[in-house]
Amino acid sequence: MMALPAAHKVQPVRVLADLRELAALTGGPDGARRVCWTAEWEKAREWELSKLSRIPSCTTAIDEAGNLWATIPGARPDVVVVGSHIDSFPHGGWLDGCLGVITAMEVLRRYAAGMPPVTLRLVDWADEEGARFGRSLLGSTAAAGRLAPDEVRGLHDRDGISLPDALAACGVNLDGMGAANSRLQEVRAYLELHIEQGPVLEQLGLPLGAVQGTFGVERHAIRFQGSTSHAGSTPMHLRRDAFLSAARLALEARDIAKRHGGVTTNGSVVCEPGIVTAIAGACTLLIDQRALDAGALAAMWTEVKAAAGRIAAEEGTTVRWEPLFQIEPIPFHPTLIGFAEQAIREVAGAVHALPSGPLHDAAVMARLVPTTMMFCSSLNGISHSALEDTPEEHLALAVRAFNHLADRTVAWVAAGQP
Amino acid sequence: MMALPAAHKVQPVRVLADLRELAALTGGPDGARRVCWTAEWEKAREWELSKLSRIPSCTTAIDEAGNLWATIPGARPDVVVVGSHIDSFPHGGWLDGCLGVITAMEVLRRYAAGMPPVTLRLVDWADEEGARFGRSLLGSTAAAGRLAPDEVRGLHDRDGISLPDALAACGVNLDGMGAANSRLQEVRAYLELHIEQGPVLEQLGLPLGAVQGTFGVERHAIRFQGSTSHAGSTPMHLRRDAFLSAARLALEARDIAKRHGGVTTNGSVVCEPGIVTAIAGACTLLIDQRALDAGALAAMWTEVKAAAGRIAAEEGTTVRWEPLFQIEPIPFHPTLIGFAEQAIREVAGAVHALPSGPLHDAAVMARLVPTTMMFCSSLNGISHSALEDTPEEHLALAVRAFNHLADRTVAWVAAGQP
Repeated sequence: MMALPAAHKVQPVRVLADLRELAALTGGPDGARRVCWTAEWEKAREWELSKLSRIPSCTTAIDEAGNLWATIPGARPDVVVVGSHIDSFPHGGWLDGCLGVITAMEVLRRYAAGMPPVTLRLVDWADEEGARFGRSLLGSTAAAGRLAPDEVRGLHDRDGISLPDALAACGVNLDGMGAANSRLQEVRAYLELHIEQGPVLEQLGLPLGAVQGTFGVERHAIRFQGSTSHAGSTPMHLRRDAFLSAARLALEARDIAKRHGGVTTNGSVVCEPGIVTAIAGACTLLIDQRALDAGALAAMWTEVKAAAGRIAAEEGTTVRWEPLFQIEPIPFHPTLIGFAEQAIREVAGAVHALPSGPLHDAAVMARLVPTTMMFCSSLNGISHSALEDTPEEHLALAVRAFNHLADRTVAWVAAGQP
Repeated sequence: MMALPAAHKVQPVRVLADLRELAALTGGPDGARRVCWTAEWEKAREWELSKLSRIPSCTTAIDEAGNLWATIPGARPDVVVVGSHIDSFPHGGWLDGCLGVITAMEVLRRYAAGMPPVTLRLVDWADEEGARFGRSLLGSTAAAGRLAPDEVRGLHDRDGISLPDALAACGVNLDGMGAANSRLQEVRAYLELHIEQGPVLEQLGLPLGAVQGTFGVERHAIRFQGSTSHAGSTPMHLRRDAFLSAARLALEARDIAKRHGGVTTNGSVVCEPGIVTAIAGACTLLIDQRALDAGALAAMWTEVKAAAGRIAAEEGTTVRWEPLFQIEPIPFHPTLIGFAEQAIREVAGAVHALPSGPLHDAAVMARLVPTTMMFCSSLNGISHSALEDTPEEHLALAVRAFNHLADRTVAWVAAGQP
């Protein structure tokens, strides 16, 4: 067991007070208003910088991609990064993102009194949500050196304003964002606290979870083609009903996902011509499959394709599919997951390890450095809504556990482990 | 066996020539243009009146509902009505409706040479299709005394023209349409030839079918309510997916319909919010069930409701339904069905008895007098399209068989049977 570094006591009450202060400033009954690259987001950033300015020995900077960094220099140049994002969805929740940023502030506050064994750095990633231009994880992707400016240059918001213009209004030059990559030099670990945005912890009656990684996604449009004919004049045995093919496939896809420990969703199903007296001549079913294990995810999609072909043959329809979005699973670092489990067990008694369904900036960082996340329960699993909430005692436990996780990680990096 | 009345020989070639003449006048490569209450329909009517005027002893009249009647007086006042409708869908088929009207002309031509034993009357019903105002069977319903003017007074076409104004432009007063009922006095039987508009006869390799009646319909909107949540963060066992409830119900409804010898269709399925990353929190499924037997139809709907409730309970969703349209099955007259089968067997060798999926004016008449229909095959089951067609030899057989059916029915009415 390594020796944990000396740091001041965790004070969750400070984090809760700051969360409420930020919510009062940039939120309200209609939810958070911190959409990235807007005046409300800049107001939140000013508040954040003012809070950070009160931490001794803390220096702040905004990088070329709009990410905000706050650094406490340590005995070693090796860096442990803690953070999340302060931007929100329109009418968003009061915890999504800023819980992680403000808890990271508490980590810095605790270490700022003395010289930490390694350098500590808070990050507030720009435009995690992609709420205005539809491209999420923008700041972290740029810092990771994985943003292709030409792929996002043509994006516009609802008012017709282009992404490059909105960035420029906030002092960011799209073509220069990649320079933010220099901020990742010497970074040895990345830690992020976030609300779960799902129902798993609440259902288990647990406040906290250790995150195993982010799901990979196989998202496709599957189109069955049958034959449109009249609902009255076509006997059952002469039908080629595209919707019934889709219905069978959706049910089989559920069995397949359960067998492989993943999830599958058909959120959109469109019948053509879509009228009550016509058998569906075509039916397009969108499928979104996710799993933490790459092999399981590949098997899920392979089995769904096979099932689609078999069902089409049995139903007298044809089927084709086209990919909409694919990303591999991104497992987090096993040592850091272990630290998170220990920290949660210490603070809350019981721990559950779970995958993250949504992507996070941590998924970008996990490709570069040892990374993990900690989840805090979400009331009714609701997020991206003014209804988003978490019991106050869970938030307090989350602040404690995340700080313990940071302490263990600092000690691990200080010992030259990664 | 009754003695069949003396009448001239059937000449299908005359019917085929008239069909082509009408198609050339009011149709073409884009399909028929005889939408009711339009100038093209009136042009078809003028053509029809001119053809009827050449039949000796034939008098014509247009009744208060816009229906066209042509009468050959017989030895008895008892009337046998033969007919169909000359109006069409926009870009409609060349046979839908007018095959029956022009074949009925051939019946009148054959009997006009002498004094038929009973009075023969052709009818061309106004607005069978309801293509312009959405209310089908308008003329026959009015003549049957079943039209409530206030229920259709507010209908408008796409250009905002009201139904009463369109009727008035053709000399019809909505509130006076019921007076057409006087035309049904002394009517003892109604016979109609129509294309099948479905694939059954073609699949059986048969030109003609005897129609048993029109299907009853149970048409409902079924709405499952579950819970919308994120496709990534919600594990399979915590989902309440409204679409999967609908998918299960659609497949069970198919089994139920097959068990009862009916048909069932889900032509429209709408998921909410309908996006690829959200589990469907609600799903509205339209169901259209049809059967010829009232008990079977009632059982089909009862069993679907029970299945919906059971599936909802199993899936953690709730379900409710509301009726969209209901009509009871309308069986045709067994004696006349028998005559149709005999007539078809005589001319075509083999016969198949089948229900009619679509409604027809015959369904209105069947509530009042002994009625039946004869179906002629439809190529690929297609109707309401310029692609609608039937092999010429099937049309010729249809003209012969329908005239034989008329002969048998005239003899039956002459013998005072109904």
